[in-house]
Amino acid sequence: MLVTKTPGTALTSINETMLNAFDAFNEYKKVLPEQKAIFLETIANEIEALGDTLINKASEETNLPAARLTGERARTTMQLRMFAAMVREGSWVEASIDTSIPDRYPVPKSDIRKMLIPLGPVIVFGASNFPFAYSTAGGDTASALAAGCSVVVKAHPAHAETSIMVYEAIKTSIKKCGMPSNVFQHVNDEGFETGKALVQHPATAAVGFTGSFSGGKALYDYAFERKNPIPVFSEMGSINPVIFFPDTLEKNSEELVKMYAGSVTLGMGQFCTNPGLMIAIESDALNIFLENLSEEVSKFIPSKMLHEGIQQAYIEKMEKALSQKGVTLIKKSTYQSNGIKTLPAIASVSGETFLKNPTLHEEVFGPYSLMVKCKDVNELKEVWQSVAGQLTTSLMGTDKDFNDHKELIEIAPAIAGRINFNNPPTGVEVCPSMVHGGPFPATTDSRYTAVGINGVKRWVRPICFQNCPEYLLPEELKNKNPRKIMRLINNQHSNGDVE
Amino acid sequence: MLVTKTPGTALTSINETMLNAFDAFNEYKKVLPEQKAIFLETIANEIEALGDTLINKASEETNLPAARLTGERARTTMQLRMFAAMVREGSWVEASIDTSIPDRYPVPKSDIRKMLIPLGPVIVFGASNFPFAYSTAGGDTASALAAGCSVVVKAHPAHAETSIMVYEAIKTSIKKCGMPSNVFQHVNDEGFETGKALVQHPATAAVGFTGSFSGGKALYDYAFERKNPIPVFSEMGSINPVIFFPDTLEKNSEELVKMYAGSVTLGMGQFCTNPGLMIAIESDALNIFLENLSEEVSKFIPSKMLHEGIQQAYIEKMEKALSQKGVTLIKKSTYQSNGIKTLPAIASVSGETFLKNPTLHEEVFGPYSLMVKCKDVNELKEVWQSVAGQLTTSLMGTDKDFNDHKELIEIAPAIAGRINFNNPPTGVEVCPSMVHGGPFPATTDSRYTAVGINGVKRWVRPICFQNCPEYLLPEELKNKNPRKIMRLINNQHSNGDVE
Repeated sequence: MLVTKTPGTALTSINETMLNAFDAFNEYKKVLPEQKAIFLETIANEIEALGDTLINKASEETNLPAARLTGERARTTMQLRMFAAMVREGSWVEASIDTSIPDRYPVPKSDIRKMLIPLGPVIVFGASNFPFAYSTAGGDTASALAAGCSVVVKAHPAHAETSIMVYEAIKTSIKKCGMPSNVFQHVNDEGFETGKALVQHPATAAVGFTGSFSGGKALYDYAFERKNPIPVFSEMGSINPVIFFPDTLEKNSEELVKMYAGSVTLGMGQFCTNPGLMIAIESDALNIFLENLSEEVSKFIPSKMLHEGIQQAYIEKMEKALSQKGVTLIKKSTYQSNGIKTLPAIASVSGETFLKNPTLHEEVFGPYSLMVKCKDVNELKEVWQSVAGQLTTSLMGTDKDFNDHKELIEIAPAIAGRINFNNPPTGVEVCPSMVHGGPFPATTDSRYTAVGINGVKRWVRPICFQNCPEYLLPEELKNKNPRKIMRLINNQHSNGDVE
Repeated sequence: MLVTKTPGTALTSINETMLNAFDAFNEYKKVLPEQKAIFLETIANEIEALGDTLINKASEETNLPAARLTGERARTTMQLRMFAAMVREGSWVEASIDTSIPDRYPVPKSDIRKMLIPLGPVIVFGASNFPFAYSTAGGDTASALAAGCSVVVKAHPAHAETSIMVYEAIKTSIKKCGMPSNVFQHVNDEGFETGKALVQHPATAAVGFTGSFSGGKALYDYAFERKNPIPVFSEMGSINPVIFFPDTLEKNSEELVKMYAGSVTLGMGQFCTNPGLMIAIESDALNIFLENLSEEVSKFIPSKMLHEGIQQAYIEKMEKALSQKGVTLIKKSTYQSNGIKTLPAIASVSGETFLKNPTLHEEVFGPYSLMVKCKDVNELKEVWQSVAGQLTTSLMGTDKDFNDHKELIEIAPAIAGRINFNNPPTGVEVCPSMVHGGPFPATTDSRYTAVGINGVKRWVRPICFQNCPEYLLPEELKNKNPRKIMRLINNQHSNGDVE
């Protein structure tokens, strides 16, 4: 693609930003792995160096408590260092080498060597509920920079000043590490048109988003409208159904109440993995569990939600859900203090009613959860399968439960990106095996994850070199393999040289 | 997703086909790797067992000579056996295991295990120019069956009877191997609405296509219109620019003429990797090369193209290209026989004119190639960068050329999926390192390849199991690793057991 330097008319500054991002990409993609790793680590250090000032600002802007934000900052810097380690180690490029067979009959076989290369400038849309870990220097940015892409962050207006502070830390790191100055840029604009212009600019190569369905789907649509469509990974949340099997409800009710109440109220339910739906078969044990769960949840001391819009949406969406025919509020929290009206709630509905009413399938972003009481295992199966694509689905059961319902459990992979056993769905572990993704509408492409080192795969594509002179090959594809990266050589895994 | 068994009104048979495909998928995904491998190998055997009858039928329908079709059949059965070997070996599932750390502070780490699983029913649209290797049992079908997906092939009307013969071979294999009877289905319908209905059916999980831009983009659009968009990999061809550097034009002119003339006329130019564009800097050596190339190409004895529509399109598109201002036909083939009017041709144009006229950037499917004569290296760079996304781009040069133009060569990866050095662009090697893909509009997603074992990645998504009891885990994720597949265990490559 040829990106010309003719400034746009309507959105000149976006045009300039993207042309800068394109130039920076062309420099940055040549930066050696060790330098890239140090750059990512420096960003982590610079964020830490902001100390309490950063935590206080974020707390002021998001209403999140300092302890939570301190934990999130640790996750953010950990992610940056994880990607630094991945880049330094090097096997992530999936190098593959097929050597030539000049005397093959009937035609000689050429030498062919493949690896992953960065796509180009990536636009990252920060999330409101993760001011650090899914925003300015969050997972999307870290993985894109690790891939070798330049990044333009569209800051979330709900924590714009926090975003600027993190941006300053990245700017300092760019200077300290001698990186191209526009390898990371920051756009602070509430305008809806800005996001659209960023996604549709010819120099833009990919988009990362974490947030609502309406926001994520809009960006996906903008990208589709382009002359050359580009990949958009939008993580758009879900209701994350949790199945409670009969035997565990009999035997572990108390423990389940504690775990579930903790998960549904964690961070005022402001997680994309928050469990919004429970599914179980009617029984006395289920009723007891529900009573105790509601009791436990009602004791929870609520706090302010992220911002006014989210607070209002929670109240409205919960009221809408509770007003649906057949929905019973088990117990309402009686907590009253400093005007906080966003109270957690547990409700229930019959399987039959749930299946008929699509409103009950919608996410209520906040500490609300609906129990679907099914008349039998067939109805449970039907209810579970009726939900749209999910980030995660959980199974609470004893070994007896799992052995009694093996066929039912086989459904789980079709529903979500992560299948969770006797663990709360909240608390996404950052590790290579994590899948934080799932079928549409949980994300726009179930083939990718937003968490863990595999998040890098959203921003890269394979390229192969045929009959390429050794001296023109990228380091990862040369015969010698001094970094001992894992490669596929003539279809065999090897961290050695090509002989 | 819940796929209900209520038959459609307008397209009942498509609805039935897709519901069958969905049911078959749910059985087939449970088939063990060894059985799946035998199934793929049986298809290869059954296709071979059709012997000359198949070759003769295909030759009758496509005008392709028997020798070419015999080679293509060998490639097709080789691909099926290659995917069988991949499935049998097992590492392709990218298993990754992070073991638990119960005493981690402040929160315990859960056991998390990830692998790739099949997406669901895949629709494959056969290509007209590859009646075997990119059609009924071609690369898309083989990779989708290897992934564990059920497949519905929409046969290409230009070789419908060939397609039915291959379908019968697959049906026999299904019976012999005891596979779900609808794991592969065949739709023979010229209707445009049929393709749309297949792509938009709720049970459809992904689409593979090889053909024209208009066809591939239409399917991409249909998939986007769905309530839940699905991945479409359309390989839509390109003009595959070939750069000729000055020193090699001086020294290796004769050899280059032979190689290029062979590549541009191979199979009457009916390959998506056919070189439609040459780029070089003006010189006497270039003029001599062009004269000799045209002479060589004019000696080529043309044959009938695949079908009437392609023949007509070639004549029209070439005439349109040749009628553009500034385009010079170097030499016209004088070949005359049995009414074949699809003659190969070499033309030239200046860099300046090429840059101004988008018509000259369009693919002319057939044995036609345009040389862009640039006034200097900067114009060559501009011309090269002005073309849209390509499957492949080639560099013809001596070591002196490559050393003189290192900065220029750095552009290549942005242009195509495969960078080719002193090799003809035609002749796509089927091996793990092959990338047959490229930026839009060469394909709809540059992150995938249609050729080689990595083609399987179009049809799979990662899923992770958190805190899952050992007895519920898929074989590939259990502690014991009897097949010795390569896995990532706590971020280290290993083909051993989890300790």
